[in-house]
Amino acid sequence: MRKIHVLTQKESLNPERLSGCTAVVIDVLYATSTIVTALHHGARAVIPVLHREDALQTAAAYRETEYLLCGESGGYTLDQFVNPDPLELATAGIHGKTIIFSSTNGTVALKKAATARTVYASSLLNGHAVADHIRRSSEEGSIVIICAGSNGRFALEDMLGAGYLIQELTHHNPDDWQLSDGAFAARKLFASCADRLSDTLLQTETGRFLEKLGGVEGILHAAQAGTLPVVPLMHGEALMPEKTANKSH
Amino acid sequence: MRKIHVLTQKESLNPERLSGCTAVVIDVLYATSTIVTALHHGARAVIPVLHREDALQTAAAYRETEYLLCGESGGYTLDQFVNPDPLELATAGIHGKTIIFSSTNGTVALKKAATARTVYASSLLNGHAVADHIRRSSEEGSIVIICAGSNGRFALEDMLGAGYLIQELTHHNPDDWQLSDGAFAARKLFASCADRLSDTLLQTETGRFLEKLGGVEGILHAAQAGTLPVVPLMHGEALMPEKTANKSH
Repeated sequence: MRKIHVLTQKESLNPERLSGCTAVVIDVLYATSTIVTALHHGARAVIPVLHREDALQTAAAYRETEYLLCGESGGYTLDQFVNPDPLELATAGIHGKTIIFSSTNGTVALKKAATARTVYASSLLNGHAVADHIRRSSEEGSIVIICAGSNGRFALEDMLGAGYLIQELTHHNPDDWQLSDGAFAARKLFASCADRLSDTLLQTETGRFLEKLGGVEGILHAAQAGTLPVVPLMHGEALMPEKTANKSH
Repeated sequence: MRKIHVLTQKESLNPERLSGCTAVVIDVLYATSTIVTALHHGARAVIPVLHREDALQTAAAYRETEYLLCGESGGYTLDQFVNPDPLELATAGIHGKTIIFSSTNGTVALKKAATARTVYASSLLNGHAVADHIRRSSEEGSIVIICAGSNGRFALEDMLGAGYLIQELTHHNPDDWQLSDGAFAARKLFASCADRLSDTLLQTETGRFLEKLGGVEGILHAAQAGTLPVVPLMHGEALMPEKTANKSH
């Protein structure tokens, strides 16, 4: 029986306790939705970094045609970077490129999770595909779902992303899984909001903030549960798309 | 419009941000359920402390007949202290006495919340009474509900206690309140579990742990939402029962 934990914000994560675990990082608005969308639209890889300087330092190892800088801080696009709204990034000429990506919460959580045996990025868009990949893998040990949260606080959209993943993980063989309190709550919250995800995301604290910045289309995109069969898996410092069942069969 | 925040665990609390706020601390299994039950059964006051040594130091200011030491660490009763199971404490000869109380999560959260303008202790037992008192008070500013959580992690029973309080605060005048993501989630979780609180509490991580220690009766007691009209309010370092509407009319 595999145990599923949910951390409601990245600040609760103790990296030392992740060894041997499968980690799944979720930042629905937008970091992980953006990563999933970028890989779906042909980006070669996404490298999460901590901040602007980290991004510039990472970029120094690449030729100018190979990479693209993307990032925000506190919701505002970094100077000379592409805005990490998933739809904007997808149309920024990313095919075959490595995206070097800095964000306030999501990429910080991904860096912090690097001590886990395996690290996935998930969102509402691809939770079904990540769940399918985890269920087919031979890994044992706990699954730790890390909601990025918002500056040390609970963010509803990330709990909904966790709940969707847990629903997809557990509904085939419910007795194979043991849920922590956080995992139980996330699945229950997703079930109670599943029929109105767009409205719910628009009403979250981050959703209201992004709407003011003109991000409604990105929010509606991020709310489309189960639409992108992408499994972003960390290889070294980069997330790359794993072959999914949909593609390989 | 007053804003309601929920912190999912005491570790997320920044005491500096509480000034001018109304804080409500919730630790359903058991610290705040125990405090409410003790005050309902005639304890004069409850002084939350951080640990055993702190309790002994606090006790030195009292005569032996005036106080009673109560506490646990990691779920295990402290040596020569009364076990803080609410039903055990209620029958330990507490009438008129000051309970000096140390626990792993709840009393630590209460001490940490002391920078707020007003500090209440709430639980499923008395959430209706605390909500009523807050609605009648002339205070403004945000209401910050601090779930004690369990050693830095989300505890479902505390979110249910928060959700009950928020339901009771908001159902009369829903437009008077602005809910944070955490407050929205807590209210939704309470609504989806309200018809089976006993079973839900027994299945939480803390519930299963306490059941192994023989605490089923205490858990079933703590699950009885809306049964005790007690409003524990912090005066200096001690929680004392505030006059409630039920008593004063």
